Amino acid sequence: MEQILIRELKDKDPVDALFLVKEKNVNFGKNGRPFMTLQVGDKSGTLDARAWDRVEELSREFEIGDIVKIKGQIQLFQNRRQLIIHRLEKADAAAGLSFEDFLPQTARNSEDMMAELQQIVKTVKNDFIRQLLLDTLEDSELRPMIMRAPAAKSIHHAWIGGLLEHILSICKLMDFMGSHYSFLNRDLLLFGAIYHDIGKIWELSYDSGIAYTDRGRLLGHMQMACELIDKKASRILGFNEELRDICKHIILSHHGKMEYGSPKRPKFLEALVVAMIDDLDSKIATVHGLLQNERASGDRWSRYSDLFDRYFMLDDLKEKF
Amino acid sequence: MEQILIRELKDKDPVDALFLVKEKNVNFGKNGRPFMTLQVGDKSGTLDARAWDRVEELSREFEIGDIVKIKGQIQLFQNRRQLIIHRLEKADAAAGLSFEDFLPQTARNSEDMMAELQQIVKTVKNDFIRQLLLDTLEDSELRPMIMRAPAAKSIHHAWIGGLLEHILSICKLMDFMGSHYSFLNRDLLLFGAIYHDIGKIWELSYDSGIAYTDRGRLLGHMQMACELIDKKASRILGFNEELRDICKHIILSHHGKMEYGSPKRPKFLEALVVAMIDDLDSKIATVHGLLQNERASGDRWSRYSDLFDRYFMLDDLKEKF
Amino acid sequence: MEQILIRELKDKDPVDALFLVKEKNVNFGKNGRPFMTLQVGDKSGTLDARAWDRVEELSREFEIGDIVKIKGQIQLFQNRRQLIIHRLEKADAAAGLSFEDFLPQTARNSEDMMAELQQIVKTVKNDFIRQLLLDTLEDSELRPMIMRAPAAKSIHHAWIGGLLEHILSICKLMDFMGSHYSFLNRDLLLFGAIYHDIGKIWELSYDSGIAYTDRGRLLGHMQMACELIDKKASRILGFNEELRDICKHIILSHHGKMEYGSPKRPKFLEALVVAMIDDLDSKIATVHGLLQNERASGDRWSRYSDLFDRYFMLDDLKEKF
Amino acid sequence: MEQILIRELKDKDPVDALFLVKEKNVNFGKNGRPFMTLQVGDKSGTLDARAWDRVEELSREFEIGDIVKIKGQIQLFQNRRQLIIHRLEKADAAAGLSFEDFLPQTARNSEDMMAELQQIVKTVKNDFIRQLLLDTLEDSELRPMIMRAPAAKSIHHAWIGGLLEHILSICKLMDFMGSHYSFLNRDLLLFGAIYHDIGKIWELSYDSGIAYTDRGRLLGHMQMACELIDKKASRILGFNEELRDICKHIILSHHGKMEYGSPKRPKFLEALVVAMIDDLDSKIATVHGLLQNERASGDRWSRYSDLFDRYFMLDDLKEKF
Amino acid sequence: MEQILIRELKDKDPVDALFLVKEKNVNFGKNGRPFMTLQVGDKSGTLDARAWDRVEELSREFEIGDIVKIKGQIQLFQNRRQLIIHRLEKADAAAGLSFEDFLPQTARNSEDMMAELQQIVKTVKNDFIRQLLLDTLEDSELRPMIMRAPAAKSIHHAWIGGLLEHILSICKLMDFMGSHYSFLNRDLLLFGAIYHDIGKIWELSYDSGIAYTDRGRLLGHMQMACELIDKKASRILGFNEELRDICKHIILSHHGKMEYGSPKRPKFLEALVVAMIDDLDSKIATVHGLLQNERASGDRWSRYSDLFDRYFMLDDLKEKF
Amino acid sequence: MEQILIRELKDKDPVDALFLVKEKNVNFGKNGRPFMTLQVGDKSGTLDARAWDRVEELSREFEIGDIVKIKGQIQLFQNRRQLIIHRLEKADAAAGLSFEDFLPQTARNSEDMMAELQQIVKTVKNDFIRQLLLDTLEDSELRPMIMRAPAAKSIHHAWIGGLLEHILSICKLMDFMGSHYSFLNRDLLLFGAIYHDIGKIWELSYDSGIAYTDRGRLLGHMQMACELIDKKASRILGFNEELRDICKHIILSHHGKMEYGSPKRPKFLEALVVAMIDDLDSKIATVHGLLQNERASGDRWSRYSDLFDRYFMLDDLKEKF
Repeated sequence: MEQILIRELKDKDPVDALFLVKEKNVNFGKNGRPFMTLQVGDKSGTLDARAWDRVEELSREFEIGDIVKIKGQIQLFQNRRQLIIHRLEKADAAAGLSFEDFLPQTARNSEDMMAELQQIVKTVKNDFIRQLLLDTLEDSELRPMIMRAPAAKSIHHAWIGGLLEHILSICKLMDFMGSHYSFLNRDLLLFGAIYHDIGKIWELSYDSGIAYTDRGRLLGHMQMACELIDKKASRILGFNEELRDICKHIILSHHGKMEYGSPKRPKFLEALVVAMIDDLDSKIATVHGLLQNERASGDRWSRYSDLFDRYFMLDDLKEKF
Repeated sequence: MEQILIRELKDKDPVDALFLVKEKNVNFGKNGRPFMTLQVGDKSGTLDARAWDRVEELSREFEIGDIVKIKGQIQLFQNRRQLIIHRLEKADAAAGLSFEDFLPQTARNSEDMMAELQQIVKTVKNDFIRQLLLDTLEDSELRPMIMRAPAAKSIHHAWIGGLLEHILSICKLMDFMGSHYSFLNRDLLLFGAIYHDIGKIWELSYDSGIAYTDRGRLLGHMQMACELIDKKASRILGFNEELRDICKHIILSHHGKMEYGSPKRPKFLEALVVAMIDDLDSKIATVHGLLQNERASGDRWSRYSDLFDRYFMLDDLKEKF
Repeated sequence: MEQILIRELKDKDPVDALFLVKEKNVNFGKNGRPFMTLQVGDKSGTLDARAWDRVEELSREFEIGDIVKIKGQIQLFQNRRQLIIHRLEKADAAAGLSFEDFLPQTARNSEDMMAELQQIVKTVKNDFIRQLLLDTLEDSELRPMIMRAPAAKSIHHAWIGGLLEHILSICKLMDFMGSHYSFLNRDLLLFGAIYHDIGKIWELSYDSGIAYTDRGRLLGHMQMACELIDKKASRILGFNEELRDICKHIILSHHGKMEYGSPKRPKFLEALVVAMIDDLDSKIATVHGLLQNERASGDRWSRYSDLFDRYFMLDDLKEKF
Repeated sequence: MEQILIRELKDKDPVDALFLVKEKNVNFGKNGRPFMTLQVGDKSGTLDARAWDRVEELSREFEIGDIVKIKGQIQLFQNRRQLIIHRLEKADAAAGLSFEDFLPQTARNSEDMMAELQQIVKTVKNDFIRQLLLDTLEDSELRPMIMRAPAAKSIHHAWIGGLLEHILSICKLMDFMGSHYSFLNRDLLLFGAIYHDIGKIWELSYDSGIAYTDRGRLLGHMQMACELIDKKASRILGFNEELRDICKHIILSHHGKMEYGSPKRPKFLEALVVAMIDDLDSKIATVHGLLQNERASGDRWSRYSDLFDRYFMLDDLKEKF
Repeated sequence: MEQILIRELKDKDPVDALFLVKEKNVNFGKNGRPFMTLQVGDKSGTLDARAWDRVEELSREFEIGDIVKIKGQIQLFQNRRQLIIHRLEKADAAAGLSFEDFLPQTARNSEDMMAELQQIVKTVKNDFIRQLLLDTLEDSELRPMIMRAPAAKSIHHAWIGGLLEHILSICKLMDFMGSHYSFLNRDLLLFGAIYHDIGKIWELSYDSGIAYTDRGRLLGHMQMACELIDKKASRILGFNEELRDICKHIILSHHGKMEYGSPKRPKFLEALVVAMIDDLDSKIATVHGLLQNERASGDRWSRYSDLFDRYFMLDDLKEKF
Repeated sequence: MEQILIRELKDKDPVDALFLVKEKNVNFGKNGRPFMTLQVGDKSGTLDARAWDRVEELSREFEIGDIVKIKGQIQLFQNRRQLIIHRLEKADAAAGLSFEDFLPQTARNSEDMMAELQQIVKTVKNDFIRQLLLDTLEDSELRPMIMRAPAAKSIHHAWIGGLLEHILSICKLMDFMGSHYSFLNRDLLLFGAIYHDIGKIWELSYDSGIAYTDRGRLLGHMQMACELIDKKASRILGFNEELRDICKHIILSHHGKMEYGSPKRPKFLEALVVAMIDDLDSKIATVHGLLQNERASGDRWSRYSDLFDRYFMLDDLKEKF
């Protein structure tokens, strides 16, 4: 069976494919009969699905986070595609399926991005910072996590490889910032670019859907990044406590304000720039993603965005003017 | 008389020079005798000055904003220089003195900056936007104002030529942003860089000190920039109302939030980027200036900054690591 | 066919009438069959309507903002009337139907209100302000817009003619304020009464339902009112820039606080009074409307009002005490 | 000795008069010798005064709130008048001096205002409310307090008779509101006008300067007004608990928001209107007073007002346009 | 018929029992047929119930707050029990049913709690405060109300007897606070413990469900507690106004901040401690209740709590470590 | 020379004693001559001091944080004592003076408090938590720091030994909380009591006055306490990561809200209780200290407290009622 991508499904298409279950609800209509609403996904997107038959049985067979095989058909209502489920069964765990194939993925090649990142790290002048960064990126346990982790649960870069994409984008911005504002320490900017969100490799789980881990909820990615600094720096001869504290401060302050979860406000320029550029890259990615989604509607204005407390104009201004 | 610069005055130096009066207070000590405290300035900085003799007479002879000739001597108290006034008289208006020589100035050459800016404008692809920007920069009335205006009353780029410095810095940032985020309309970013604060040429007066104008207080620089768009665009054949509105929106929304004085929140990505990059360049300039001043104290931490609600670390991290 | 008014429909009534479609949703029940929920309106009110047959077909035939002919019957559930749709077709565009007949209307006669308003304007003493106001009200393009525009999308005076009603109410309040507080400039108060919301004639569209226009979203009614001042004042000999700025400030500051979208806080008493009286008249109209609606429930307390963050008591205190 | 009014004193005038001491500070200059700074007042205004001789002795002889006899002379510094004290002694308590003669006073006649108020109360239609109001105004203990109390410690109507002025102004506004918005219960509006701040007769002391009482700080004027309702209403046959609660709610909610000290938000229109009209009359009086003071400076813009978070324009617009 | 408790009902159980109706909604499915959703309760908990037959008839027979007899069966969907209604009729009012038997109840014996409370009150040293508290608890009208009232509508101690439970818990905390912080007046702490929420006996009705009364909405429990002090204290010889005011202040300030509805902030330590300990006991009870409910899900983390703006960890840490 | 305590100095007393310099300012009077204002302290309190002779010389001889020997005399102005300096010299560093003798001290014996604390720790049931706490208190480096550190720079327990006092007070409160709310894990409460502020031993320096350290400003006491857990727990066999995370969460969340500097909100009851009881003990100590100071004035109400945004009543209510 060749896997059809969700992105390509059209009205009336028959479906016989594997999906990851992302949401699952059972409700019931009049006369007590239940129906089931799912959100299923593959690497190309997500789709609503519904079933009316044998719902109770079906419902017991799988949970959110399982991969299921669904036969059914696409129906279009109000310009949105739905998958009407005829048959559904849990995929055989023994079949060697990889959850990763069902999660959204970065559009770029992670190996390429990592190589590009390492090239940038090699331009760091301070020996201790460079060593810290290289030891981190080349750590055989961390490296694959950095290459796979998403940068967020749902807001921006919320896909496999998203963290690395976000890090690399900020590194390039920092490279420019370092030359545009000549009084800034470029090494610390690059450190901040790479380490500010690195704790997300442990804050989020991303094996079968993206979710917060227990440690993520209890400690957060900042605390875990600080612990990583201690671990790595203690193995670098001459990495003194003062530089460690400067590095930890950049991490602890990168949300910019205490009400956003930073226990410390940025207290020197490089920490301030890390916080502002992180915010810039995140906001642009978030809004760009939001506009891309909304443009499918054909309207000139987006639906109301609670996150941004406004309607966005959907015109493609690059095209238009 | 050769003018000595405030920046260069040292303890015990005799003084016989012209200064601009920036603040003026008369208080009085025990037994009813008044003394006068001034803040005087020249292009290189500001200085406190005090007089104890003939204060009432002296006080009637000049006002804030006048240029005065002072004879006296520098005294050092608590590591701060003070000018003890022996004689003071208002400078002869007929002597052809230029207030500009007594205000802080950009460290760069305004003609060079303007030339650089015009080069950037010529790379704007949209004919209407490019024409609007060129007509603005080449307007014989506006051009000298844009070259002289400060970008703010006191916070950042608060000196003659500061507006142009701020505009040029943002243009370069926008040039990078336009290539880093390929989906952005670079022409609109450059428009925003140049026009977002252009109303400051009317919002601030900067002939004898920097102050708000009546129009600045009643309307603000955003409103005046929108009026300038109407004036300029109405003379460009084919500049339609839709593009005008897009341009006006970028201006009206560039403070980012309503509570910061923007009547509209940014509703498309280019407007959001203009607001964020303006904030970035302003904050970096503000903090950089603050740190430069504070470093003179020799302390490791700044005094408390009310504006930023924190103490800043004064280490020069570029030097240190 | 004589048009029956929504206000008068009762349980079991057969319906065969024209309505404006204000909301339209297609959902579907068990076994995949869709049903359609509409909100339809005429000049006397709004009504929920539902259809279960041929929903997909029906759904393709019309959009929100269309006038449709519906045959069906009223059913009462939980004391609320619903229109069960038996047949529905889009009204013939060629039939010369006027959308205006399907929108809520002011209870007063717009010509009368306009006449009354002009009488008040004639009592303005300052020649320039009076001329500006007369030129505006007598402008053949603007006059019908001022007579038709609503004062808001949904909160208060949200009906055809609502703007004029709101303007006239405030003019009368200002007439009293001017005499009660003898130090106030009555002419500026009346100017503010008439011009503060006049930009709503362009901020809102009200041809087929009340909605925000693109210009409304990008610029807002304050900016557009300022542009109107420039346009009108430039044709009045001797109308100087200082008075223009005073007038513009009244408009720009009439939301009272920056977080409510005013780029300037009121900086003189007349501007402050315009902001406060606008708030007073709007709030009273809003709460009065809310109470009128809620009283239909027969309860002593309203449902929770998110807008006002409270429950309102529904007793008619004028009647009661 | 004929009492000279502070309002009329000019530079170089000799002074020999009685004043109320409003502030008193002893500081000392170089060589350990103290000097004394006072603020003294009479019914026409306040004045700064200074003494350099026998300060310790002098300081022991009187306190803030005493009436003192001062001989000295007016000196002008920076356009502000100061009283240089040559001799000072505490006024003879036995001399029958009335503190009231040294506090700022309403410009109107309190008897006239009270008579006008009673006329308005007689137009209240509801027998119970009218009786409550008449019983309150005619109470031999309360009546003189209502006629003398200020409406605030310092912000607005902060003078003897200010409360009555404020009450009367709001009554007239309410008379208009009741006819302009015909659905409002005018009796409740008038009740709110008279009772909302009546607790200030106990919240403030105003015998020798205006200050908060202990009960004012612990309970506040709302709580004390509610207790007055209970006391008065319990003596009016047929005044039921429901009307009492409505009246108490108007008082308890008249600050409009919980963060302004109202334990309840206004929950019906009359309560809302009382809160809004109180705010209107107070703000107008406050800003009008502030502008009057500031205009003495001859500047076009006021000093920064912390209370309103802005600079005010000082032009007399009634005069100007 | 023996009453089965909701707490004990399991899947497939037949039901024939009396319940209190707490919520009632009629919706309708496809083809215009309505169905009814209820929330019913007894003293052990609440249950969702549904009916599809004769819904219109049924719906007219009873209202929220009625006791109804239901025959039907329990069905389990998504691990939640539902009661499928086969027959329903309103219970016979003449049958002597007590609503109290259908409301949630304190787990403790109210007589025991009251006895324990009275023992504590007898340890109050100040004669006036002790007498005030005893007179209150022994008042034949108030005593049964204090023993039955809930402490809140829904957040914490929201059951019959909850107020007394809350009062007793705080009394014990205050007993400790009084000895731990030896400078505190224990009598005032105990007064605050007992009186701070006593107005809830009138603010809430709890005969057929817990709801706000009209007086509760208009005045609030603080105002009513102050009135009770006046009533009780006026009958105790020598209970002076100063102590009354101290007591009233403790009540009026016990929400701690004006934005939480306290017209006064706590102005002495005992008032501050009453506010903080009330907050402590309420928050602990609220979160403990929330966690108990959520643990039924079997998850490690609670659903998002809007009230606390967070997810809670559900581990029983007392058990675990 | 026997050291006289500041607390005991009275008007006219001659002074010849050692003091710690806490503040130092040089200003100058009329005719250019400087004078010096100091705040000096010993373990019993602080005192203002002034010098007029040889100020420039004197000023160069010592800095804030030095111990100086002063000869002079007490003078009383406005009921406040001042020390008039006749002679001043820096104390001989070789004289073996201890800064500690010049800082405010806990009124209790630190050894006794530590012994009491260890007794409480021995009642902790969980072996890992008990071991962690004992290892911490018995650590030969940490123990003396815990016994000396203040709990804050200025707000509460701001004296040598203050941290231990605060810890012990909370331990006793937690002991009660654990029994009053039987569902709480008492071991975690005691852990939180001891560890929540333990990082203050590094956040504050307290050798010559209390001040923030660099690490304190960059990382804060929460981060440093988490590092201490890692260090200590890694040496306790079987102390698993889950318990570490629970412990760290209690520390990271103990400020209760993100805007108060906690990167995480409390997510289980024990963490919430630690945050609330810390707030309770700190606030009571702060207000109690404030009231003690203010009572010296003899007024009934305190000066305005910016920290608490109110005036406090100064009556000793324990004494009074």
